[in-house]
Amino acid sequence: MDLLEKCRAYTRADEARDVGLYPFYPAFQGPAEGGQAVLDGAEVCMLGSSGYRALSVNAQVIGAAQDAIALYGTSATGSRLLSGNLDLHENLEADLADFFGYEAALVFSTGYMTNLGVVSALAGPGDQVFLDEKAHASLIDGARLAEASGAVVRHFAHNDPNDLARQLAAAPSTSSLVATDGVFSMEGDLAPVAELVAICEEFGATLLVDDAHGVGVFGRGRGVVEQTGMRGRVPLMTLTFSKALASQGGAVLADAKTIDFLRHTSRTQIFSSGLSPADTAAAHAALREVRRHAEAEPDALAAAAYLRRALDALGYDVADSAGPVIPVRFPDQLSMLSAQRLLVEHGIYTNAVLPPAGEGHQLRIACTDAHTPDVLEAAIGVFASLREDLLPRYRQAA
Amino acid sequence: MDLLEKCRAYTRADEARDVGLYPFYPAFQGPAEGGQAVLDGAEVCMLGSSGYRALSVNAQVIGAAQDAIALYGTSATGSRLLSGNLDLHENLEADLADFFGYEAALVFSTGYMTNLGVVSALAGPGDQVFLDEKAHASLIDGARLAEASGAVVRHFAHNDPNDLARQLAAAPSTSSLVATDGVFSMEGDLAPVAELVAICEEFGATLLVDDAHGVGVFGRGRGVVEQTGMRGRVPLMTLTFSKALASQGGAVLADAKTIDFLRHTSRTQIFSSGLSPADTAAAHAALREVRRHAEAEPDALAAAAYLRRALDALGYDVADSAGPVIPVRFPDQLSMLSAQRLLVEHGIYTNAVLPPAGEGHQLRIACTDAHTPDVLEAAIGVFASLREDLLPRYRQAA
Repeated sequence: MDLLEKCRAYTRADEARDVGLYPFYPAFQGPAEGGQAVLDGAEVCMLGSSGYRALSVNAQVIGAAQDAIALYGTSATGSRLLSGNLDLHENLEADLADFFGYEAALVFSTGYMTNLGVVSALAGPGDQVFLDEKAHASLIDGARLAEASGAVVRHFAHNDPNDLARQLAAAPSTSSLVATDGVFSMEGDLAPVAELVAICEEFGATLLVDDAHGVGVFGRGRGVVEQTGMRGRVPLMTLTFSKALASQGGAVLADAKTIDFLRHTSRTQIFSSGLSPADTAAAHAALREVRRHAEAEPDALAAAAYLRRALDALGYDVADSAGPVIPVRFPDQLSMLSAQRLLVEHGIYTNAVLPPAGEGHQLRIACTDAHTPDVLEAAIGVFASLREDLLPRYRQAA
Repeated sequence: MDLLEKCRAYTRADEARDVGLYPFYPAFQGPAEGGQAVLDGAEVCMLGSSGYRALSVNAQVIGAAQDAIALYGTSATGSRLLSGNLDLHENLEADLADFFGYEAALVFSTGYMTNLGVVSALAGPGDQVFLDEKAHASLIDGARLAEASGAVVRHFAHNDPNDLARQLAAAPSTSSLVATDGVFSMEGDLAPVAELVAICEEFGATLLVDDAHGVGVFGRGRGVVEQTGMRGRVPLMTLTFSKALASQGGAVLADAKTIDFLRHTSRTQIFSSGLSPADTAAAHAALREVRRHAEAEPDALAAAAYLRRALDALGYDVADSAGPVIPVRFPDQLSMLSAQRLLVEHGIYTNAVLPPAGEGHQLRIACTDAHTPDVLEAAIGVFASLREDLLPRYRQAA
């Protein structure tokens, strides 16, 4: 049996395709963000994007990215360490640090690489890593690399500060990293940042909050650290540019010494090309837009609150969540996949959450600033008209 | 001692800064590619970029990236699995597969994530991974993740097929992955692909060639697999868009079943946003340019051959290499760093290769299609004028 036998034996995707219920890799012909999108030639209401502020189609952001290409070309063509460092990167880092209230920032080429590179550079022999059991794959993989270097990795129960405290008390060492998502992307729930801060301070552990899905949305654009009043008390924060910040890439925020250490030790920083000029400029322009409107509550939050109430009133099983993400539960994978397919046929795109995308079998619905009342009313009309098809099946199985 | 104590104790970069010999993170004010670049407000001859074809400043490539932003916005805003898959990605994949002669391709958001995701998805319990000891960090890190899942990881001597054969014979299993760079980025030497193919075929192992630095340059743009006549006999090829292909991102090429497996199992694919529209379009346009000029030898190769001979004639210790990369050896780090600094002061930018960038203490010089005879003659003039300063020190220590 050769190495690739496992690929030839992989049939799961084909099985879903054969019955017309394959939900992955929808190919959009235009922006995958905003109220509307084009899928297979038809317009759909896009309720499955993480571009919460609809900034990837904002004129300022688009203009900034196009201008950067004209001035810098289309590529950094090398690692920032050796040749691909642009003033664009450094200017963005300065503004990120200023906006989020940290001494310094370091930009990476993806959000995944930010977490992977930070965790694996900071935790090694003699260190402990404690992860929320539902932490993002990039934190988990960073911890696995740290473990391969000699760190001890443990998991605490999801959003359970007491379990974390018990584990820290049972394994005393101040050389510990505690890492969690700020907002969990599939379920939309928020980490109890204030409680985690208190426990980390008590035990001398270092807290990292990956606020990929909170930045731009919560805490006047500054994310859940700010939202929970913990500004200045979370030593490490990571974020991505590929959600509200309308680009690609990511960054870590920390004190200046930690950032300088990471600039020279993080393998995902050293051994990867610098973020492209267009992506860097787009993230920077989106940050400026977020900052400019920081005092106004994002439309995405009001839209999601309205849609959540409407779906609940229609009898859909809406899970508790805050913010723009609304999980709608179904009793099993088949009913969820059937619902996702039927919604697409009726012009509504939602995310089917099942392995490998996530655990369980729910639809993930996400609102953005582009979901105006008109767009939402039309979508709610479809959810209402499909009750007969979706809810009986759901009740029957419940 | 807390987790971040190691950061406060890190002084190496500051020590280099203190003596004026810090060579890393040069901040360019404009394209970090092409014959000339702007560094600290002064024009320098750019001999340290991996944009071998100078396509990041090509009008077609720039136009394609700007158009994609106008049509698709600045971000995919989500994982391709769930919401960030664009027809742009699928069109690029089709053309990559066609050009390189594989059944299918899968685009990732960086070259690093391509290797990390492919190796860690394909190798697990019961599998063996054999890496060239100088393989790129992304292959090494992918193998470390595979090892954490239960794979056995071994290293073979650099570019030594006999050592690989010995190790495969000593650890018989057909479920083995053999991975190597096609072109080693710091030294510029090529892997013996034909010999590695023969050995892998003999032992039933699966060969992966990461041709990040070969694509666009060797083998009529198709890289070292084509150059060595091994088209059709290397089951897995990876590449990056951030070198000759003038963008950011990467791709794996393989048979269709393997690609479908990776689409659903590679964690760097599933848990990261899709490549941005601008980056995707830039890579695609650069691929078209490479293909359009595939029958002409890249100017970068002639430029490097000319510069290599000139430096050798001037008495510089030029290491053997093929292609656009020219390593120039110095007896120790201090003499190399002093040379790098002096060259910058005289308007020549080269890469200082020392940890963490690489092993040893050499300057890495790289030519691109933008190095016209005039540009090269001017650079050679500087290397000649600095002989007095650089070579005595060099000879003294040798």
